[in-house]
Order: sequence, then C-alpha cells, then structure tokens
Amino acid sequence: MNILITAGGTSEKIDEVRKIVNTATGRLGALIADEFTAKTGAAVTFVCDEAAVMPESAAEIIKIRSVDDLMSNICELLADKKFDAVIHSMAVSDYKIRGVTSLDDLIAAIELGESGIEKDKLADIINRSKKISSDIDGMLMLMEKTPKVISVIKKLQPETVLVGFKLLAGVSEDELLRAGHGLLVKNDCDFVFANDLEKISGDMHEGILIEPDCSYRRMNSKQEIAEAIVTKIVN
Amino acid sequence: MNILITAGGTSEKIDEVRKIVNTATGRLGALIADEFTAKTGAAVTFVCDEAAVMPESAAEIIKIRSVDDLMSNICELLADKKFDAVIHSMAVSDYKIRGVTSLDDLIAAIELGESGIEKDKLADIINRSKKISSDIDGMLMLMEKTPKVISVIKKLQPETVLVGFKLLAGVSEDELLRAGHGLLVKNDCDFVFANDLEKISGDMHEGILIEPDCSYRRMNSKQEIAEAIVTKIVN
Repeated sequence: MNILITAGGTSEKIDEVRKIVNTATGRLGALIADEFTAKTGAAVTFVCDEAAVMPESAAEIIKIRSVDDLMSNICELLADKKFDAVIHSMAVSDYKIRGVTSLDDLIAAIELGESGIEKDKLADIINRSKKISSDIDGMLMLMEKTPKVISVIKKLQPETVLVGFKLLAGVSEDELLRAGHGLLVKNDCDFVFANDLEKISGDMHEGILIEPDCSYRRMNSKQEIAEAIVTKIVN
Repeated sequence: MNILITAGGTSEKIDEVRKIVNTATGRLGALIADEFTAKTGAAVTFVCDEAAVMPESAAEIIKIRSVDDLMSNICELLADKKFDAVIHSMAVSDYKIRGVTSLDDLIAAIELGESGIEKDKLADIINRSKKISSDIDGMLMLMEKTPKVISVIKKLQPETVLVGFKLLAGVSEDELLRAGHGLLVKNDCDFVFANDLEKISGDMHEGILIEPDCSYRRMNSKQEIAEAIVTKIVN
C-alpha cells in the first residue's frame, strides 16, 4: 500500500530576508504516518516543510517550501506512482506575494485614473525587490491567491482515497460542518477532517471527521484522529 | 563584564495561523557570544527567537517573538542591569501588520472620498480577524513601521558600547559604508557591521566594520567578525 501524506506549513518569500509562514507543527500528519506504518506496513511518502515534526517511519520524506514547490512535487508524485490514499493535512498558504507598494503611491495611482483604476495597471506601481526598504510609510503588500493543491489530486488519480483538512477559528460546529463538507464536495474528497484552532492545544485536538453524506464523528485527540483516518482508509 | 547580544530574527503575527518572519540563523550572534565567554569570561545575556542557533555558553538566554516583545525585554534588561556592551545583531522586522483589506474595498473607499482619502479613515476598512478568509481577491496587507529597538539602547545606557548591524542586498561597498555609517550616527553606535546578503553563505561572510570616523575594516568570515568585535570592545 502506498500512502501520500502532506503535513506542516508552507512559506512564501516576500524578499530575500522576509517570508510569510503558515504555522503548523505537522504533528498530526506524523502521527497518521506512524499509525499507517505500524498498522498496515504501508510505504508512506511524507511531504512537509523543514520545521515539521517528522514521522518515525516513512519510506520517503520530501521537504518543500512554497505552494508552487508543493504543487510541482505533488503533481510529479501522482504522475509517477499510484497512491492508495492521499492525506492532505498540510496548512497550505492561500496567498503569495505579488508585490509591495506604499499607500501614497496607490492612492495617487487611483486618483490619476479617470474612471477607476484597472487592476492590471497596478502592476506598474507594485515593486518586487531583493530587499524591501525599511522606510516605507504605510507599506502595502498585495497578495494573490495560490493554486489549490487539493483540487488537482483526484484529477490526477481519480481512484485514490482523498482526505482533506479544513481549519477555521472560533466557529460553531454547524459552520465547521458546512465548511468541511463544502471542501469535500468541491475537491471530490472521500472524507474531510474539520477543526477549530481554538480547540487545538498540545494533545487536545477536537474536530469532526465528515463523510460525503454529511454524517460525521466527533474526535478529541490527535491519536484518535490518526487511528480513525487509518481505519477508514483500510476498510 | 556583562554583555547583551541579540541574534536571530523576529516574527509578526498576521492572524492565528500566519506570520511574517525575518529569517536569520543567529549563527554570527552565537559565535560572538561564545567568543566573549572564551576570551573574557563575560556574562552574556543572549536574546533570540525560538529557532536561532544558541551559543554554547551564555549566562542567560531570553526568547522573544515579535518586535514589541523584543522592545519590552530590552528595555527591562537595560533598566535592571549595567551592560558593558550591547551587540544588536538581530534581524528585526521593520514592519508589523496593521490589517488586511481587499483591493476592491480600498479602491471603493478612495473613490468615495471627495478630495482624497485621509489615511486614518482607512482603519475603517482594514480588518483584523482571527483567521483571514482564504478567498479574498486581491488581498492587501497594510503594514506599519515597528519601533526602532536600536534607538533606545544608548538613551537607556549612554555608557554602553553599542554595535549595530546593517544588512543590504546587492549594493556597492560605497553604499554599504554610507548606510552603515548612517545607522551609526542616528543611533549613537560605537561601531556598525555592514554586510550584503549576496556575500553571505555558510561560513563565508563578507562585510565591513565601520568606525565613527568612517574608517572601516573588511572581513571575510563569521569567525573573523566575532573576533574583531570582541577585541574592539575589550580594548
């Protein structure tokens, strides 16, 4: 059995010394990896960032930084080898940096335009530099969306079992269910684990494992989540 | 002898899962700390981030995250104890996040204003949330300047020997000298080490140690820099 697990966070460079980081320890992903190896002897390919908690046993560990980096690695892996399941627990950045400008320059550009500015023209006032000056008053960072890595998985391997993850903050269980099931439908996931940042600390990790029919099971610890996901996939 | 060394980088929270990080290994700071202990038996207080390289020998290690965090720790330390020298090698973030909006909302706000928008009013359209939506088209992050930690050091301890650090990218030695000396004058430093990102890799570390009279000495390795700084301070 071949299993692909992503875990940890991604980082996007702002310039040569600054970056935007999605913080995630990767502990849950590592636990799932170890649970798979212990219970099934599966060959786990573990894709993570440099700082992530590593599994004790993985056939292969691939370290990535940016979302683009993650995307190209995932596409290559899925093109090369058949995976029985993909567990995409990595906290992937939704945005990358398009460039930097100042509030004054942006306002000037907008006021110059006769009837509103065209967004594409903004490229002219957005700079990318090796190291951003430390002295911009009202610095603005314009961000653009990153490609959705989860959306390519079933397209490349329609028969794999795909487990998606949805993280929200300070929401009701209803909202968690709605958002998690939305992710499931949109990306053709087989299950989605949805959780709330405010209910995660150390080993305490509350969340719900959602099925395509909207039924779900509540969980309270990383170990319980790891066991449930492995059991679901094996059966 | 009491020595205060800052090293590594700072990080500024965007929301509960994202942060902006200034990447710096802290290796040079740790080397300077160890050089001080070995050569002078000084008691080194080492202020750094969680991920920094730690010195082998330090009387005290204080871990900080944000610039505000750094500022309050430095002020407290300088108020409590007399330091013979402060070596401020930390890569301190110049900006922190004021809030997030979308390009559309910003343009609408600016176009609504009769004769240009007042910057303060922007606060109304800038949001701070626990976790930023993953679905903003043209997300804008508005940044504000952080307080300059280096500027308070001589104000709190006029008699300490202050070593500042200036990092640029892809500039001439002339520019390096000008920027480094500017930092020295502005903050009443006794020396400034100025270096170029493109001339740092592993142990290779080129840069110039600048004196108040604008004379300077070229250096080529972290060890050479550490030894020169310690020697300068002891003499």
